[in-house]
Amino acid sequence: MAQPIEFFFDFSSPYGYLAATKIGALAAKYGRTVAWKPILLGAVFKVTGGAPLPSLPLKGPYGVRDMARSARFHAIPYKMPSVFPVPGQSPSRIVYWLQSVAPEKVEAAVLALYRALFVDDRNIADPGTAADAVASIGIDREQALAAINDPAIKERLKNENDAAIARGVFGSPYIVVDGEPFWGLDRLDQVERWLQTGGF
Amino acid sequence: MAQPIEFFFDFSSPYGYLAATKIGALAAKYGRTVAWKPILLGAVFKVTGGAPLPSLPLKGPYGVRDMARSARFHAIPYKMPSVFPVPGQSPSRIVYWLQSVAPEKVEAAVLALYRALFVDDRNIADPGTAADAVASIGIDREQALAAINDPAIKERLKNENDAAIARGVFGSPYIVVDGEPFWGLDRLDQVERWLQTGGF
Repeated sequence: MAQPIEFFFDFSSPYGYLAATKIGALAAKYGRTVAWKPILLGAVFKVTGGAPLPSLPLKGPYGVRDMARSARFHAIPYKMPSVFPVPGQSPSRIVYWLQSVAPEKVEAAVLALYRALFVDDRNIADPGTAADAVASIGIDREQALAAINDPAIKERLKNENDAAIARGVFGSPYIVVDGEPFWGLDRLDQVERWLQTGGF
Repeated sequence: MAQPIEFFFDFSSPYGYLAATKIGALAAKYGRTVAWKPILLGAVFKVTGGAPLPSLPLKGPYGVRDMARSARFHAIPYKMPSVFPVPGQSPSRIVYWLQSVAPEKVEAAVLALYRALFVDDRNIADPGTAADAVASIGIDREQALAAINDPAIKERLKNENDAAIARGVFGSPYIVVDGEPFWGLDRLDQVERWLQTGGF
């Protein structure tokens, strides 16, 4: 059976959001599933020396412009959140919890959380706001809140993040197809060619 | 008359090379010309705090892989040079000299210089090697060598570089269409849409 496409993403990443709206359909087109792997880029950047794009001179203002333009280019609803970037612990823990108890709801939960932040300008770093977002797609709000505070889920996120860093993940989205890494929304065309051809 | 497309690029930039092979035809398709603007990213990075991609942890090794894969994806000949990155003064000065004396030869000269570095593994930082590359397309070798050492051409490159920094150019390729900036080979799809529609 074909391996899942690994989709590493930070909940505060606009390009992660834009790519998240597309990767499910792209995977399905080639008979693949998606392994959704939320990460915390802040911890990654401590190792890699990276920095959030909007904080960089010149590149930052360009990035803000490019994020909005890329959303329009792909016809995806998008609004730069009024609080940004936001810590991703709450939404990320909900995702890892769902992977254990309701894996079939993970994609819808990721998209609901991303939409809350990048369409509805809701600060999903707040546990209640994150729980509201997934409650809107039929997930139990109290259980989601409990998961955010569950020491085992906290540990799971930390371990996943450490594993991602050890694998060389340095940005969002970071997509791995059969061992081949692709960084960025703008590599989805190469991801598709790789899925079609098995490598080029 | 429609404005030229401004194409800022560093001669040591693989993505600059790949985009340079495409921008001329793309511009012509929409009745535009290209204003070729070689820059020295080293000087830009002193202002922006940027760094050459291959030197960065994690992102560097990924970049080296992605450059070669992107060349294959676009079916463009490419080989990582054995000396890399190289200072761009010699080829850049030849380009600014040609813009004064033979502007119709600028595109062919840019492509010949880029091919020398990224296909034939010739170190075009060396004045003689850069002059050889443009001699291969019928430009006078001795005049090219003289241009590399001409104080007025040196000053022109410095002024162009300062002007690019003042404009906010921070990478290569950096493409400006009617005031709208696009960074990277992977924005050529958005550049084309912008040329088609006048903005989106």
